[in-house]
Amino acid sequence: MKEYKLAIVGATGIVGRKVIEVIQEYDLPISQCSFFATRKSAGTDFFFKGKQCLVQELKSTSFDEGFDFAIFSAGSDASKFFAPIAAEKGCIVVDNSSAFRMDKNVPLVVPEVNPEEIKNNHGIIANPNCSTIQAVLPLKVLDDKYTIKRIIYSTYQAVSGAGQEGVNDLERGLHDEEPKKFPYPIVNNCLPHIDSFLDNGYTKEEEKMINETRKILNKPELKITATTVRVPVVNSHSESINVEFEQSFDLNELKETLKNAPGVIVQDDPENNIYPLALNATGHDESFVGRIRRDFSVESGINFWCVSDNIRKGAASNAVQIVQKLIEFDNENN
Amino acid sequence: MKEYKLAIVGATGIVGRKVIEVIQEYDLPISQCSFFATRKSAGTDFFFKGKQCLVQELKSTSFDEGFDFAIFSAGSDASKFFAPIAAEKGCIVVDNSSAFRMDKNVPLVVPEVNPEEIKNNHGIIANPNCSTIQAVLPLKVLDDKYTIKRIIYSTYQAVSGAGQEGVNDLERGLHDEEPKKFPYPIVNNCLPHIDSFLDNGYTKEEEKMINETRKILNKPELKITATTVRVPVVNSHSESINVEFEQSFDLNELKETLKNAPGVIVQDDPENNIYPLALNATGHDESFVGRIRRDFSVESGINFWCVSDNIRKGAASNAVQIVQKLIEFDNENN
Repeated sequence: MKEYKLAIVGATGIVGRKVIEVIQEYDLPISQCSFFATRKSAGTDFFFKGKQCLVQELKSTSFDEGFDFAIFSAGSDASKFFAPIAAEKGCIVVDNSSAFRMDKNVPLVVPEVNPEEIKNNHGIIANPNCSTIQAVLPLKVLDDKYTIKRIIYSTYQAVSGAGQEGVNDLERGLHDEEPKKFPYPIVNNCLPHIDSFLDNGYTKEEEKMINETRKILNKPELKITATTVRVPVVNSHSESINVEFEQSFDLNELKETLKNAPGVIVQDDPENNIYPLALNATGHDESFVGRIRRDFSVESGINFWCVSDNIRKGAASNAVQIVQKLIEFDNENN
Repeated sequence: MKEYKLAIVGATGIVGRKVIEVIQEYDLPISQCSFFATRKSAGTDFFFKGKQCLVQELKSTSFDEGFDFAIFSAGSDASKFFAPIAAEKGCIVVDNSSAFRMDKNVPLVVPEVNPEEIKNNHGIIANPNCSTIQAVLPLKVLDDKYTIKRIIYSTYQAVSGAGQEGVNDLERGLHDEEPKKFPYPIVNNCLPHIDSFLDNGYTKEEEKMINETRKILNKPELKITATTVRVPVVNSHSESINVEFEQSFDLNELKETLKNAPGVIVQDDPENNIYPLALNATGHDESFVGRIRRDFSVESGINFWCVSDNIRKGAASNAVQIVQKLIEFDNENN
């Protein structure tokens, strides 16, 4: 079987470290894996498949050694600069930043939802925003069956989505220390503010959810609105999702549709207190959905609760799954 | 000036204690204040207006001494049994429980919204659910001006809403102890489960928000849906509220309308990170609103963020303000 060379860029961040963990779990045919980070973090060492590996400083020449794939989790600036260099050298980049997500020439991929888009890449494939990935998994099958008319998102996002500094702020707050990452203490608080504000009053995070959902579902005109909120939870995002459909539905049939959706696990038995929870989703790669119920305020609509590990499926695992698909497609061609 | 005799029932609970605090702050013309609780808590002592007071055991004869008003915060069962007894003896009961809220003969009052309803009481006035009170304050003025068509609530509710045991569960969780009040740990978790589940998949808390909003706004057919969620925040509820209007609006004018609403404070300057926060709302009696922005997914709609101290305005202060209105109306009549 063919083996591949992989570069992990931004290897020392919270997502980069998870990528290294997930790559080993998935046991992909990777013959060589190299780790890159900024000069500050270079020299850090990892155990990868039982061997000690050093993190190298990321440079323009880093991709000269001929990688097949690279997973970037180093922020937008690094992606904008280095991803085109890597792609130019024949390496397919899976980029976790928001740099290329809305670029018409860059596929935005959740492998269970729009895997074929991967084939349209020109060297860069974008990994969607964490809060979008978990939502489109259930929404895709519902759209296929009932045609979505409108979506209203309210999110309950974990501090790990803001990186290690976000996690540290939660810890700091528990010791009555001032926050460094967030503008206000996150302990005992909900911050309706993720990423920066736009002129129209929305945050970039809200805009990302709206635009990326449209792009992934391939419905550029879909009516969507969002309120994204940081909550004092260390990991896994929760979302209250309200959906209106064009078609009518039978609730049991709709639940069955969700049960059969790839990447979705239905946890919906209120009588026995079964519903998705951040604490339970952490460590898994699925999007957990529950509290599925008819919205009696519209002709055809539902409310549901959606929870997923934002660092795994929301970032690292989705990127690794894209690499897995790339390998699958490559093997199909050979 | 006329002075009144007040009974505080359920004086030792988290809301009862706050009622005692707020009554003193508001400096109402109360000549005598008596405190009642179950036998278990009887004997507890308080300082009230500089004097030490003992909590008495609540009995059927407790109201024989001729109270003008009573504020009940002792749960539905106690209210169902003792409120009619008190009312029968000529005492007007302001009840914090859900026991009488949907009773046609019982006004459900937020003094800034529907004060005149107080006059229709037959001895019992219901204090609405905490999450409803803070929402109807901004919604009332918006409905008057633009006619609300539909509301979608997603809440971020503090553990104090579940009483002292809820607060203790958050504390327990921080010491890795098992929860006693909630079905799952609340630390690092969001529980989409407040009060018990109904057959239609909604919780009673969600049903309360829907029905009580309709009753207070006097729009029994208003289209409303809700998802209510407990978050690891000690005090003050936050809410993501989506509203659709019949009429079109100018956003600046709408914000002005909210600024002029009684009991509402607008904190809405995203550029300077000004928006309502649970930590800042605690200790205040207003409903704080911000993140007010057009919902581009409907013809005429907005999203906004609404935060308020659930123990003060959501319970104790609203009840005290109802008593304040009762005194005002009584003085007008004399």
